[in-house]
Amino acid sequence: MQNYQDIYSEAQKLDNNQLRTLIRSEKFRGQTSGLAKNFLQTNLIILDKTHALDFMIFCQRNPKSCPLVGVTNVGDPFFKTLGNDIDVRSDVPSYNIYINGKLLKRTNNISNLWNENLVAFAIGCSFTFEHSLIQHGFKIDHIENNKIVPMYRSNIKNKISGQFKNTMVVSMRIFKKSQVNEVISICQSFHWAHGKPVHVGDPKGIGINDINNPDWGDKPRKMFEDEVNVFWACGVTPQNAILNSDIAFCVSHTPGHMLITDIKEDAETPILK
Amino acid sequence: MQNYQDIYSEAQKLDNNQLRTLIRSEKFRGQTSGLAKNFLQTNLIILDKTHALDFMIFCQRNPKSCPLVGVTNVGDPFFKTLGNDIDVRSDVPSYNIYINGKLLKRTNNISNLWNENLVAFAIGCSFTFEHSLIQHGFKIDHIENNKIVPMYRSNIKNKISGQFKNTMVVSMRIFKKSQVNEVISICQSFHWAHGKPVHVGDPKGIGINDINNPDWGDKPRKMFEDEVNVFWACGVTPQNAILNSDIAFCVSHTPGHMLITDIKEDAETPILK
Repeated sequence: MQNYQDIYSEAQKLDNNQLRTLIRSEKFRGQTSGLAKNFLQTNLIILDKTHALDFMIFCQRNPKSCPLVGVTNVGDPFFKTLGNDIDVRSDVPSYNIYINGKLLKRTNNISNLWNENLVAFAIGCSFTFEHSLIQHGFKIDHIENNKIVPMYRSNIKNKISGQFKNTMVVSMRIFKKSQVNEVISICQSFHWAHGKPVHVGDPKGIGINDINNPDWGDKPRKMFEDEVNVFWACGVTPQNAILNSDIAFCVSHTPGHMLITDIKEDAETPILK
Repeated sequence: MQNYQDIYSEAQKLDNNQLRTLIRSEKFRGQTSGLAKNFLQTNLIILDKTHALDFMIFCQRNPKSCPLVGVTNVGDPFFKTLGNDIDVRSDVPSYNIYINGKLLKRTNNISNLWNENLVAFAIGCSFTFEHSLIQHGFKIDHIENNKIVPMYRSNIKNKISGQFKNTMVVSMRIFKKSQVNEVISICQSFHWAHGKPVHVGDPKGIGINDINNPDWGDKPRKMFEDEVNVFWACGVTPQNAILNSDIAFCVSHTPGHMLITDIKEDAETPILK
């Protein structure tokens, strides 16, 4: 059996269609950061239709963390506006299954769980602006070292919709203090992908007490004196909202393990022509 | 009784809150172009909750014409994320009432029609980019002459969601050919407000056979040889979609008569802090 690093190196050579085929076959089960460059990757939430309107309204009211880029028809497992053959039951490398607001397990295929009452939502992802930052010459630790970006529960309150509330989840990257303005300027045009940071500086300012102990993803690298923590709204926010609800059933991607679409990162809208 | 031009001139001096109060009192019933400068104005759609999810998905799939900037809770007539006291029953100068997909009548207050099953949707509006164009020195005929922008049914097909389908409605403004690139560049950052034009040039190219006979709004001025028709996706598109459906009940704004919000046009997100 190939080791993970070999499979990841192989995956980096594939285009978005080939990569989805590999994921669908369950041969690739890893995180997708740095893969399918130039194509939009997304967070995933699958819910019963009874919660779908409240959830869409939650996304509309919390656009920094939940920029909605695709929604299936009720019961239809294909994201038709995001690509020609994107099956939400199999095309994400790893899924989280939540029962009654608690994480039950992870799995690599949810075909046996799909039913005619489910709706899937695709939410923009930080990989889009990370890719742009790299093209501008920035180094991003978790991509260089094939780790998952550290993510934290902040104390920034979400706008409530129905049962969806709780606080914003943020992702963190380390940059030189002198480069923060350029980072902000590069990111602000990516309104499908969290846009500008929500906080720069002391993690305690947004309720994060231990930066070395993220709630999701890997521990960050050591930070130097001329550097600073930069925090973005994160598409894991809906999972945090569901943990805090009585929602009986929800499936999401496993943080870092995203859905790869056929939409170019620089498309004007995330809608297949 | 004051004549309309006097009331419009008076309204131009008011801030967004004062203007909404005047509209609520039904003393101002006119079009809102050029008013409450710097604040986001929106299109309005009110539907029964049974159609709300399909309609939100329609907006998500047609973001050029339907950039969703606000949604009420079911049965709640206040747009809480768009301002402190925005009552959808009274704060639009003129409403269109649609019954079984046909325009039944216009009215200035819908309090007697509101009920606990209704949901209101606010959709971004071209006034936002027009204001920016004027600040950049462009002249816009319908604003200078207190007319309503001409709007047309195009042949550009909408992405379908449930009963919502039909074609895109476009608004048209005339610019010098030599200035079109600058116009595009100014508008493209306003993704809540239709962004870049969808078509430049021959109206027949998007199925408009008589430019002097708009489907909504006023007839355009004469165009000169060095000028060109520039078309934008328009927030009247959902009304066109409803005309083509079996939806029993829908209320919208009357084209040109918009909802004035407390959101600054240059805010990062259309969400009240």
